[in-house]
Amino acid sequence: MPGPPPALADARVAVRRWLDGSGLERGALVLLGCSGGADSLALTGATGFVAPRAGYAVGAVVVDHGLQPGSAGVAREAADRCRSLLPDGSPVEVVRVSVSSSGAGPEADARTARYAALADAARGLGAAAVLLGHTRDDQAEQVLLGLARGSGARSLAGMSDRRPLGGGLLLGRPLLGLSRQRTSDACAALGLAPHRDPHNEDRRFARVRARGALARLEGDLGPGLAGNLARSADLLRDDADALDALADTAYLDLGEQPWGAPALAALPRAVRTRLWRRAALEQGSPGTDLTGEHLRAVDALVTDWHGQGPLHLPGGVRAVRTGEGVRLHREA
Amino acid sequence: MPGPPPALADARVAVRRWLDGSGLERGALVLLGCSGGADSLALTGATGFVAPRAGYAVGAVVVDHGLQPGSAGVAREAADRCRSLLPDGSPVEVVRVSVSSSGAGPEADARTARYAALADAARGLGAAAVLLGHTRDDQAEQVLLGLARGSGARSLAGMSDRRPLGGGLLLGRPLLGLSRQRTSDACAALGLAPHRDPHNEDRRFARVRARGALARLEGDLGPGLAGNLARSADLLRDDADALDALADTAYLDLGEQPWGAPALAALPRAVRTRLWRRAALEQGSPGTDLTGEHLRAVDALVTDWHGQGPLHLPGGVRAVRTGEGVRLHREA
Repeated sequence: MPGPPPALADARVAVRRWLDGSGLERGALVLLGCSGGADSLALTGATGFVAPRAGYAVGAVVVDHGLQPGSAGVAREAADRCRSLLPDGSPVEVVRVSVSSSGAGPEADARTARYAALADAARGLGAAAVLLGHTRDDQAEQVLLGLARGSGARSLAGMSDRRPLGGGLLLGRPLLGLSRQRTSDACAALGLAPHRDPHNEDRRFARVRARGALARLEGDLGPGLAGNLARSADLLRDDADALDALADTAYLDLGEQPWGAPALAALPRAVRTRLWRRAALEQGSPGTDLTGEHLRAVDALVTDWHGQGPLHLPGGVRAVRTGEGVRLHREA
Repeated sequence: MPGPPPALADARVAVRRWLDGSGLERGALVLLGCSGGADSLALTGATGFVAPRAGYAVGAVVVDHGLQPGSAGVAREAADRCRSLLPDGSPVEVVRVSVSSSGAGPEADARTARYAALADAARGLGAAAVLLGHTRDDQAEQVLLGLARGSGARSLAGMSDRRPLGGGLLLGRPLLGLSRQRTSDACAALGLAPHRDPHNEDRRFARVRARGALARLEGDLGPGLAGNLARSADLLRDDADALDALADTAYLDLGEQPWGAPALAALPRAVRTRLWRRAALEQGSPGTDLTGEHLRAVDALVTDWHGQGPLHLPGGVRAVRTGEGVRLHREA
């Protein structure tokens, strides 16, 4: 008996491994976020096969962002495909969301609305996990976009293959190790022609430009680039986890502000920078406006103290050194 | 009285800041590595002006790699320019090196030979520091090349603006905050036409391809990319410094091998990975062959122990877990 085609087998193995390592209880409901595109259809096909055999219930949610004409029809069609790929009786829902503009850009706004809708649907259905179809190429694009912004390790670390969404709900990305091509091949093996989102060709979107840039970069710097970027992201995620944990410990150790300059000076700068960021956010500085430059200026209150005056951070937050004490507080 | 043209002023300020922060004693000799290209000529011009006024002696070394026809002439011409840019009587030397093939590639071999020759010349002249003309664009290319290899934070952190070379000698890169264009502009302001190295156009070299890729990436992802990559590098350098220091401490705490699995499991993975790498290198694994995959397999002896057999690392190094003890050692 021949096995499944290789791409489909890869997708199934990836989902199986993810489920095995998930710590979910048997019988739990695993909900798939499906757009009808190649990656999420491959995820649905693979999970529809694997999850019941591993003892999990499975369902799908299609989010209709309502941003393109005909989006309702696309969503309905994706839902129909999900039904054909999942065991009979599996819950499959279409959720229409309204994307409101927060100023963070249309892609970020659509993502925020999508994740909220998925989490709502998961809670409504009593699901234990939401799985998304992000691939290694998505990861590489994410890293590239982080670099283009001059981000630190946490941003460059890209997406995690599992993280808590709160309330015991888990977000999972089982296909992060697979290339996008592999998900297309898996769809072909399932006889599915995935929906091609016109937004995926629209160069107004940073992600689309990152996709093109990545393809050209492979030409310049050699094949395997997406996989290597994803590998860098994995290493940086470990680094960010370790340093964030150290910053958490330091935060507890330092106690109430003002914090003592000698204790701060004894910390590695990578930890101090994370402390400044956390303290500034807690005082109300908007994360989008807070730059590395601001944090470096705060750090100089410890490392290059020469009596400089209070620093003004975004959102009306001030950083002040008085004697040996450093304090971030909201302006009165 | 008008000041110097802006690009030249920028270069001078950058060198002045570097010297002020260097901790070098007044009167010390600062040696410039000069290729005759725009960046190192700008460095020479700026340092020739700044260093004497700040109380330092200055000199230059031109390394002739002997890899291109006419290289001796190019080196002589670069040395002549250095003489014209430095105070009378400043030492200016041409050093001819022979680049031997180590298998690490022609660019790495030339770099190894060049750094060794610069350090030798510096020690011969009694210099306290060697300064190089690397710019922000070099830094960005370095980061991109690290990503293309799937490297961790230390590689992605690129070049430091100062690091010890051993024996009290300091390596400095005062122009890391300036764009390459700025160094060209500084040369123009000095009336200098820098040497254009044909190797800088030769796409057989990874660095040249990275340069082209970076220019195209700016087109895709927006201007300011080189500066942003350099900013990421700065943040990652802080991270790598902190985590390397933690790994050093853990290494001392763990003492002689075998190391106890519970103590290892209590460390963040980012620290353990660094410990494995250090232990493998010490046992003779060649750094060029040791991959993240190897280190992950070693790590699984702690995090996913199910009685798996000894692991074979490059260079005849084995990683073995026996009971609670993990040990890396050279095969007999």
